[in-house]
Amino acid sequence: MSYTRYKLTIEYYGESFAGWQRQPGFITVQSVIENAIEKFSGQTVKIHAAGRTDAGVHACAQIAHVDLAAFKKPMEGFEIARAINAYLRPFSVCILNVEAVAPDFHARFTATNKLYTYRILNRAAPPTYNKGRLWHVGRTLDITLMREAAKFLIGHHDFTTFRDSNCQARSPMRTLTRLDIFEKECDPAGGREVTIEVESRSFLHHQVRNITGTLVKVGEGKWTPERVKRALEARDRKEGGPTAPPDGLYLVRIDYL
Amino acid sequence: MSYTRYKLTIEYYGESFAGWQRQPGFITVQSVIENAIEKFSGQTVKIHAAGRTDAGVHACAQIAHVDLAAFKKPMEGFEIARAINAYLRPFSVCILNVEAVAPDFHARFTATNKLYTYRILNRAAPPTYNKGRLWHVGRTLDITLMREAAKFLIGHHDFTTFRDSNCQARSPMRTLTRLDIFEKECDPAGGREVTIEVESRSFLHHQVRNITGTLVKVGEGKWTPERVKRALEARDRKEGGPTAPPDGLYLVRIDYL
Repeated sequence: MSYTRYKLTIEYYGESFAGWQRQPGFITVQSVIENAIEKFSGQTVKIHAAGRTDAGVHACAQIAHVDLAAFKKPMEGFEIARAINAYLRPFSVCILNVEAVAPDFHARFTATNKLYTYRILNRAAPPTYNKGRLWHVGRTLDITLMREAAKFLIGHHDFTTFRDSNCQARSPMRTLTRLDIFEKECDPAGGREVTIEVESRSFLHHQVRNITGTLVKVGEGKWTPERVKRALEARDRKEGGPTAPPDGLYLVRIDYL
Repeated sequence: MSYTRYKLTIEYYGESFAGWQRQPGFITVQSVIENAIEKFSGQTVKIHAAGRTDAGVHACAQIAHVDLAAFKKPMEGFEIARAINAYLRPFSVCILNVEAVAPDFHARFTATNKLYTYRILNRAAPPTYNKGRLWHVGRTLDITLMREAAKFLIGHHDFTTFRDSNCQARSPMRTLTRLDIFEKECDPAGGREVTIEVESRSFLHHQVRNITGTLVKVGEGKWTPERVKRALEARDRKEGGPTAPPDGLYLVRIDYL
């Protein structure tokens, strides 16, 4: 039997799922997509994602791969996407693109870079139509201080301080190639959306959310930027800031060679 | 008893409400805000909105006014907003701003201009994290044709063709000062968001949604731009296109002198 490997680009609303990874008794992104592919193709499949996002975390462009045996009638990528989406209709997830790739493509292991974006609604009033899609922080954030603190985290470091205690990665060393903070007005009463963009080849468990929770402490004036430097150097999760909620986190882009 | 008139700027997610206007047995934007103001102030109030949006229609900045008797302890606008928002917590609505205004300010009658935005997700795959927040149109829209058709609607016209049969306005004459169509990429697989922006001093019932439904017919290649001109001239609702769903419609800005 000959198989073709397909690269899937996937968008989802994290609140609707107990995370990416299949778990008995839970609705997960992986399980609903595998079920949809099985229904349309008649084949039993396993899909592999670039990053196994946690419950509540969204994706603009998660990447996964799957191997499928030849169809009776050849199908274009967009036809496969449409066929899977028909079975995904009850869920807040869709396949944006399907593309045949080389057999040595691996969604996770051949990824060269990932971009996560964290969205913060920074105003007194709570979110309405964006509820569940960003983190509401009422106290005005000092972006200049947050940027100063962020500088200490860019580059190659031991990120033990910003890594969940359950993180399975062998090494706590990671290289953040970019950690930018942007702000823009988001309502006519002066409310702002503050966005944190982070790029790295790979991330530790909760790394972006722990960095975000820490930078917000700085933005609120509760921590100095230098405290973030000391926290990083301590290599101790207890020295890091709190874990930001999943609501604001989006897996935005994954690059391959 | 002396009263102060307050101008309220209000944001809400339309799907959570049976429209703006108070109706017995329904959760409406007006009723939850009036109830919240009554709870915080102890005063019985009636609020007046600039535009009574339908069920499912969102607002980035609805404007309303309310008269309140003096508080025991004077309160700043932001304190009043915070107090009301505390009682609005269970609902997807918030007060962005509260401002004391002159007694002759009227949210509806002194408005000089309104901006509505209609958001369309134009791609094969259905929406995920934006479900309920835009209209999904699968067939690729020809924006150039839509813009040609839109030109016929700009200016002072009899809009009977684009007015709901239940519209209560005395005159079907309205002046659209702007009707622009924009497009931008919204996912890495080439999906687009098409946005229609319409400005006028006031609108007829369902006017923006009926115009949108008609322009989408043109964008899909099912109607020529000229057919929109003829439909307008027919002054007959039956000659107009379908009513677009409320999901994509946002009341974005209201101007006053």
